[in-house]
Amino acid sequence: MKKIEDFGLFIVGGGPGDPDLLTIKAFKVLQRAEVILYDNLINKKLLEIANPLCKIVYVGKKPYEKCTSQEEIHELIKHYIQNHSVVVRLKGGDPFIFGRGFEELLFAEANGIPAHYIPGISTMQATGFSGIPLTHRGVSESIWAITGTKKDGSLSKDLTCAIHSRATVVIYMGMKKLAEIAQTYITAGAGNTPAAIIQHATLPQQKKVTCEVKDIESAAQSAGLHYPAIIVIGNVCAI
Amino acid sequence: MKKIEDFGLFIVGGGPGDPDLLTIKAFKVLQRAEVILYDNLINKKLLEIANPLCKIVYVGKKPYEKCTSQEEIHELIKHYIQNHSVVVRLKGGDPFIFGRGFEELLFAEANGIPAHYIPGISTMQATGFSGIPLTHRGVSESIWAITGTKKDGSLSKDLTCAIHSRATVVIYMGMKKLAEIAQTYITAGAGNTPAAIIQHATLPQQKKVTCEVKDIESAAQSAGLHYPAIIVIGNVCAI
Repeated sequence: MKKIEDFGLFIVGGGPGDPDLLTIKAFKVLQRAEVILYDNLINKKLLEIANPLCKIVYVGKKPYEKCTSQEEIHELIKHYIQNHSVVVRLKGGDPFIFGRGFEELLFAEANGIPAHYIPGISTMQATGFSGIPLTHRGVSESIWAITGTKKDGSLSKDLTCAIHSRATVVIYMGMKKLAEIAQTYITAGAGNTPAAIIQHATLPQQKKVTCEVKDIESAAQSAGLHYPAIIVIGNVCAI
Repeated sequence: MKKIEDFGLFIVGGGPGDPDLLTIKAFKVLQRAEVILYDNLINKKLLEIANPLCKIVYVGKKPYEKCTSQEEIHELIKHYIQNHSVVVRLKGGDPFIFGRGFEELLFAEANGIPAHYIPGISTMQATGFSGIPLTHRGVSESIWAITGTKKDGSLSKDLTCAIHSRATVVIYMGMKKLAEIAQTYITAGAGNTPAAIIQHATLPQQKKVTCEVKDIESAAQSAGLHYPAIIVIGNVCAI
């Protein structure tokens, strides 16, 4: 008899980009996948791990563009699981860190579909490949990972709390909010805080810029950095 | 000629426990390792990946007990690299998230030793295996990961900021501070916030308890949970 771990929906983190940063567990399930529903943020090379007969379905969501809605993704999961044992939902980074993966897990469970979580190296960890640790004794006591784009499109108000802490601040999906981020720090009297933006972390085309947070918008422009990229703010950027 | 990526010090994240949650990159370097310096927080099964000729050296640091100092670890790195091409420093979770891995990287670089970072699934992500996502739309806008034990042994003051945010709070190395954590929330009028403690996440002996944060110390005692374990506080614990 098949074990429950062997079939159902697998919500898989594709990590920051480098295929060697996949977990062994994720690699194995991609090999067994009959259907892969994938996001636009993953490295397309991950899809080459799949069996040639696997159905590969794009369900990307690009901000400010036409996209597959969360409800459509749910319906696709329900559709494919009817005739397939192993349906993989492949996301960039980790599915439960600003990835909406848990919504898909709850949907699956509510529909009687066994659902399994396979974590990925989170995008924030990719800063380590640019010489920036998320914590460092005497420099940063905590990590605060925030979304730059909430459900209503606005920047999280939590950023104002974060400025007054000793945290390394990491902002996901914040590249359209650089001016607002800079202004929030300037208003709090912290415009000189070191900051960095990293794009394509862990891949050969990786790019990074460091600056003071007050100058982050112009620094991104000069370096030609744009979405998708990760923003890090805090003294760890200046070690 | 050997590429620089092929030798030196490899600072490797062992992940939360399950050997299948290692990255492929970490697995490959463990196979090639000539020396492994390992922490007490890793799953000992990871050491079985190594070649039988590999030197396996314990350099664990248990809180409140006799331990290998950071300086001794640095000296061991310097010692072993003299006669070995691949020295692995294996840590639980991720080396740059409360792991002091960056100190070892800086030490290596200052001594002319090529140093490489290989991330691991962070301990905080293991909450996903207990049905707790780190973020969830409408419930949590951010993640704040804090150390329960700073350099001077105290709880990070950042916890007080975190209570007033919409963050999921994750506390590393906090099991000796449960009473203080509860009191900090009670004082802030937030004693009813949902909380969870997870021990041995991703392993067969995984244990979890959920409660309101004001009751966290007694809940841990009743459930027999102790160090090492991860503490999560926020509405994501009650989805």
